[in-house]
Amino acid sequence: MSLSSLGTGKTEKLRVAVVGATGYSGAETIRLLFNHPRAILSAAYSTSGAGQVLGLVLPSLRNIEFSKLEEFDASHAVEQADFFFLAGGHGRAMAAAVQLLDQGKKCVDIGADFRLKDPALYPEWYKFEHGAPALLKEAVYGLSEWNRAKIRAARLVANPGCYATAALLALAPFVDKRVVATQGIVINGVSGISGAGRSATELAYHFPEAAENCRAYRVAAHQHTPEIEQELSQIAGEQVQVTFAPHVVPASRGLLATIFAPLAEQMDDDDAFDLLYERYRGATFVRVLPPGTFPETKNVRGSNFCDLSAKVDKRTGRVVLMSALDNLGKGAAGQAVQNMNLMCGFDEAEGLWTPPIYP
Amino acid sequence: MSLSSLGTGKTEKLRVAVVGATGYSGAETIRLLFNHPRAILSAAYSTSGAGQVLGLVLPSLRNIEFSKLEEFDASHAVEQADFFFLAGGHGRAMAAAVQLLDQGKKCVDIGADFRLKDPALYPEWYKFEHGAPALLKEAVYGLSEWNRAKIRAARLVANPGCYATAALLALAPFVDKRVVATQGIVINGVSGISGAGRSATELAYHFPEAAENCRAYRVAAHQHTPEIEQELSQIAGEQVQVTFAPHVVPASRGLLATIFAPLAEQMDDDDAFDLLYERYRGATFVRVLPPGTFPETKNVRGSNFCDLSAKVDKRTGRVVLMSALDNLGKGAAGQAVQNMNLMCGFDEAEGLWTPPIYP
Amino acid sequence: MSLSSLGTGKTEKLRVAVVGATGYSGAETIRLLFNHPRAILSAAYSTSGAGQVLGLVLPSLRNIEFSKLEEFDASHAVEQADFFFLAGGHGRAMAAAVQLLDQGKKCVDIGADFRLKDPALYPEWYKFEHGAPALLKEAVYGLSEWNRAKIRAARLVANPGCYATAALLALAPFVDKRVVATQGIVINGVSGISGAGRSATELAYHFPEAAENCRAYRVAAHQHTPEIEQELSQIAGEQVQVTFAPHVVPASRGLLATIFAPLAEQMDDDDAFDLLYERYRGATFVRVLPPGTFPETKNVRGSNFCDLSAKVDKRTGRVVLMSALDNLGKGAAGQAVQNMNLMCGFDEAEGLWTPPIYP
Amino acid sequence: MSLSSLGTGKTEKLRVAVVGATGYSGAETIRLLFNHPRAILSAAYSTSGAGQVLGLVLPSLRNIEFSKLEEFDASHAVEQADFFFLAGGHGRAMAAAVQLLDQGKKCVDIGADFRLKDPALYPEWYKFEHGAPALLKEAVYGLSEWNRAKIRAARLVANPGCYATAALLALAPFVDKRVVATQGIVINGVSGISGAGRSATELAYHFPEAAENCRAYRVAAHQHTPEIEQELSQIAGEQVQVTFAPHVVPASRGLLATIFAPLAEQMDDDDAFDLLYERYRGATFVRVLPPGTFPETKNVRGSNFCDLSAKVDKRTGRVVLMSALDNLGKGAAGQAVQNMNLMCGFDEAEGLWTPPIYP
Repeated sequence: MSLSSLGTGKTEKLRVAVVGATGYSGAETIRLLFNHPRAILSAAYSTSGAGQVLGLVLPSLRNIEFSKLEEFDASHAVEQADFFFLAGGHGRAMAAAVQLLDQGKKCVDIGADFRLKDPALYPEWYKFEHGAPALLKEAVYGLSEWNRAKIRAARLVANPGCYATAALLALAPFVDKRVVATQGIVINGVSGISGAGRSATELAYHFPEAAENCRAYRVAAHQHTPEIEQELSQIAGEQVQVTFAPHVVPASRGLLATIFAPLAEQMDDDDAFDLLYERYRGATFVRVLPPGTFPETKNVRGSNFCDLSAKVDKRTGRVVLMSALDNLGKGAAGQAVQNMNLMCGFDEAEGLWTPPIYP
Repeated sequence: MSLSSLGTGKTEKLRVAVVGATGYSGAETIRLLFNHPRAILSAAYSTSGAGQVLGLVLPSLRNIEFSKLEEFDASHAVEQADFFFLAGGHGRAMAAAVQLLDQGKKCVDIGADFRLKDPALYPEWYKFEHGAPALLKEAVYGLSEWNRAKIRAARLVANPGCYATAALLALAPFVDKRVVATQGIVINGVSGISGAGRSATELAYHFPEAAENCRAYRVAAHQHTPEIEQELSQIAGEQVQVTFAPHVVPASRGLLATIFAPLAEQMDDDDAFDLLYERYRGATFVRVLPPGTFPETKNVRGSNFCDLSAKVDKRTGRVVLMSALDNLGKGAAGQAVQNMNLMCGFDEAEGLWTPPIYP
Repeated sequence: MSLSSLGTGKTEKLRVAVVGATGYSGAETIRLLFNHPRAILSAAYSTSGAGQVLGLVLPSLRNIEFSKLEEFDASHAVEQADFFFLAGGHGRAMAAAVQLLDQGKKCVDIGADFRLKDPALYPEWYKFEHGAPALLKEAVYGLSEWNRAKIRAARLVANPGCYATAALLALAPFVDKRVVATQGIVINGVSGISGAGRSATELAYHFPEAAENCRAYRVAAHQHTPEIEQELSQIAGEQVQVTFAPHVVPASRGLLATIFAPLAEQMDDDDAFDLLYERYRGATFVRVLPPGTFPETKNVRGSNFCDLSAKVDKRTGRVVLMSALDNLGKGAAGQAVQNMNLMCGFDEAEGLWTPPIYP
Repeated sequence: MSLSSLGTGKTEKLRVAVVGATGYSGAETIRLLFNHPRAILSAAYSTSGAGQVLGLVLPSLRNIEFSKLEEFDASHAVEQADFFFLAGGHGRAMAAAVQLLDQGKKCVDIGADFRLKDPALYPEWYKFEHGAPALLKEAVYGLSEWNRAKIRAARLVANPGCYATAALLALAPFVDKRVVATQGIVINGVSGISGAGRSATELAYHFPEAAENCRAYRVAAHQHTPEIEQELSQIAGEQVQVTFAPHVVPASRGLLATIFAPLAEQMDDDDAFDLLYERYRGATFVRVLPPGTFPETKNVRGSNFCDLSAKVDKRTGRVVLMSALDNLGKGAAGQAVQNMNLMCGFDEAEGLWTPPIYP
């Protein structure tokens, strides 16, 4: 018996499957499903782990999760679950999504296969030709706080990238109100190393190499850039371009985006706070910090929260926006579950109440 | 409104208070209560934070916990809650416990004030005279898996120390079966730095000093020694003495005890596994790992699990026992909630189902 | 006998004193002096440690450094040394410098007391009135690779701030050649926690709080901002303003500045590399990395190197400059020793040859 | 030109080669040679890096080391150097040593190929048959402080293992004086992850897995066990057996051995201190800490020091010995250079004076 089958009324729970169950995003999705009162893990797929018990491949789940990992096969999978999280890595969710939607299932793609509306951007930023361009139009970009209505009606949600979630939650309100310029925006991101994935066991992430080390990577070339620009452009009604430099720091989890945007009109710290505060009034998972208080990744660790704050640099006419989230939480699995909740008519926060782990 | 008031039937929930709410153990207890279906945080006390909102003193709880911290005053507190966690630091729970029990309340002392049966040990190991020796007899030592029946009937439970929990869960089955000698046992402990507390902002725990550093402390002088010996002696029916050397390593959470015990009779790895496995069959939170697999603190992080394994050194006639837990979980707040569950007739695992956070 | 007295010809060595010997910058200066063939530590001053042996206050120097710490007293100090490093914290070096220069001594101020030419900036950015404005004119800003000739002739050198060193070494060549705009420059800095000092034992730097945590601080308000602007403006011949957001990451040492500058003329990665490479040809401690290779703090750890690289974002017309150094090395003590070498006619690299510690 | 060729009199320097230059031990050896006044790196060998410039494979050495890595070939190597460090991994140094000694060269094997006198122990602990058993007799076990005279006369030195160095330096004086029992000794070791090597990029050492994690490994089965027993037995004149449990903790460098030994005669902390202090009087790199002060790995980081202290547990009749060193310093490359100094008639401490890096 697995923990997720505990509680009454389990037969009424939504049967949920995770494709790519043994990566970090997949594992976190499963962790969150244990707490979910209305959903139950009914199948777990993994290419590398097929045939093994999930709780042995992920030893933190030892003795509490006895699902056997299977190789994903759509024709069989449609019997096993009604809702699918696709966490198997970029480029592999396309075929799965086509097959699952055809059979009336709903999906959240935690990867990038459906984030960009323009198929031409895939070869440029992801180095592959998109195999299901028709679905790109249908897929809803799953930034929960901005697209709630569409997500509720969607069969297929493209879960945003971790950096994109952080950057958009901070920037979108300012772009939406036309108080920042649409050109000249700079985004600096720092991420914990779990963002590189569980299988990224290359030298750079070997503990003695990564500890005490900070470095930038894919500067002005990171694949989350086009989804940030796509969403901001849509909100602005004109083309927005950003310069984005991601960095890796010696932490396991946590992502902090610091955004520098030229002001289109004068404002002070209180104005900036008010703008964010009003926009996210009632949004459970976005916490707007008062002027002078800055987000810290430790305060959102293991949770679905995104903490925001703004600081105006009057001297240079810029607003500095800061946005902290857990790259595996609101930046991946947390937002994916939030989107499932919306798609299935559950309370948006079901299964996501656990406070951040501290310290 | 606070998160913990969500859900139906809240008026039927057990009203629970935490004394010492802003230390690490108190904060972790509160985090666990958010997930508890049958208990609700009804008051939170803190000397340093009195008058402030809890969610501001503990920013991970910002926007989700609006309880106002109060100075603890027993006569007022008895109106506010029916169950109390005492997490205010060693030596301060005695007076509180006396007053609360007098008014018919139940308490778990997360500190050390009621762990030792012999009052003479307090001046020796804790440097204070015990102020309520009569209660020492009544208090039940809260090693949940060993004292379940007594805990269920208790008004006052002394929650074990973090090292003691790890050491006893591993050693007690072997001592109980008389398969290890009662003299010559060596315990080596390593702990993350949260074990030193949130207020221990001394130079040794300043990040640049503590990072990349390992050191022993209080060697052969740590205050968890007498409670380990007390419980083992009771189980053995004769005096057991141990040599205990605790260490601090550059981690926030996590505790690993490695125990070296001379074998009193021959056994191999499988025998040692079987002994542990049989003893903890049915114990939700103790996971016995198969021979050749060793516990890792990352696999229990943020949870109430204790992972155990045993390795026999045939060459030297010793068994090496390894025991991993989260010092704030099974080593403090987790076991405290487990004990509350037992004392209140709840399922032992209520509110403690969340899997470890990984990675 | 102390290590630093080893070797032949010690009587000919320059007698050097460190004021503020027990802070991180002071301790690192002393570590570097052990390797210096032409200088010897002849006195060490510390307010908090006065009367104690240095090797006991800094246990890494136990058994190898037996100097007794003294309270700094200028009239006595002038007998003890001929060259002084002032590392005692902002605001305290002014009086010392006046007295020491009067007696014909030379000084490097590792703090900020002489970095800004305009005394009015001190109350604004440092919250104190400058007590020796006349010396501000004389003091040479000690960015070694840019002010070598002046430093060689100086009695008093103001050692640059850690962020300022990183930012200026990267930016100055581009500003100097007029290939970037003088407005719209954004600087994002991340620093290890030793930058906060050894006495900063506040909760934020307590290991369990700081580990796995990233956060910005003093956004658009950091005191290194005016020295960056001062030096860039002088090079540009016009006023340059920057937006600067520093961050703290869970590392002990290491600083990475990522700088976003609007291009004033078109260039590609090779052009940017060439510009840096030509400017620093022959500069021992500045390493310009080829296009596509980004600096990492681990590669400069414990050394006086600053690693630089540039990436052009053609889409947005910006160049992204990256600059990594050890905040206690080239960002403090290393550059201070480099400046001493220049001021005393030694080879610029004396005592600084040790490669970075790796890993 | 490389840094190591700087200085006067370079033609008189000892030409030194490193086999296995790109592993952590090899890289650290090269780092130390930069500071060595009497030796110069004249060749560097690496199978994986052959043909590349060393400073590019080890980016911390970029721009300062231009040696080209070569595939090791003994017949060519004998032309290139007169002294060889063999750091290419266990089992590969045997053939090299035979060839180099035949040509009149001297070698320190940083690996394990010559540590054990009994060839039968190699299949048992290392899983290979020894290929040069005749040399096992000649090789001198390179625990510098115990075998100085033999090392001075040796052609081939077997550099001790990191755990063995820490354990032996602490234990040997007590075994030598017969004040501890020869049975019942327990050794608990904790090591930073660089001990696993640079190529050990397996999942367990992936940063998100290894950070915040502690675990034991090879319990009662670690290959340093037989060399510890061999050396102690020789000192004791009777067979000594130990139970050894190594652990890995989230640090890059640093090793701490905590040793529990039954006392054969009564002693107190002062007696234990005196015993250590007298034994290591005059030993530059062994620092004996006063009673009540315990070694910390941060205080030896990057250096050749080993810090020792002892604590008597009167209650249980045991002495607890603690020993801290840098696993790449005194535990590998540092002691290797110390042994080279002895073998070549240099001052024992040449090139090893740099104090530990702190913090």
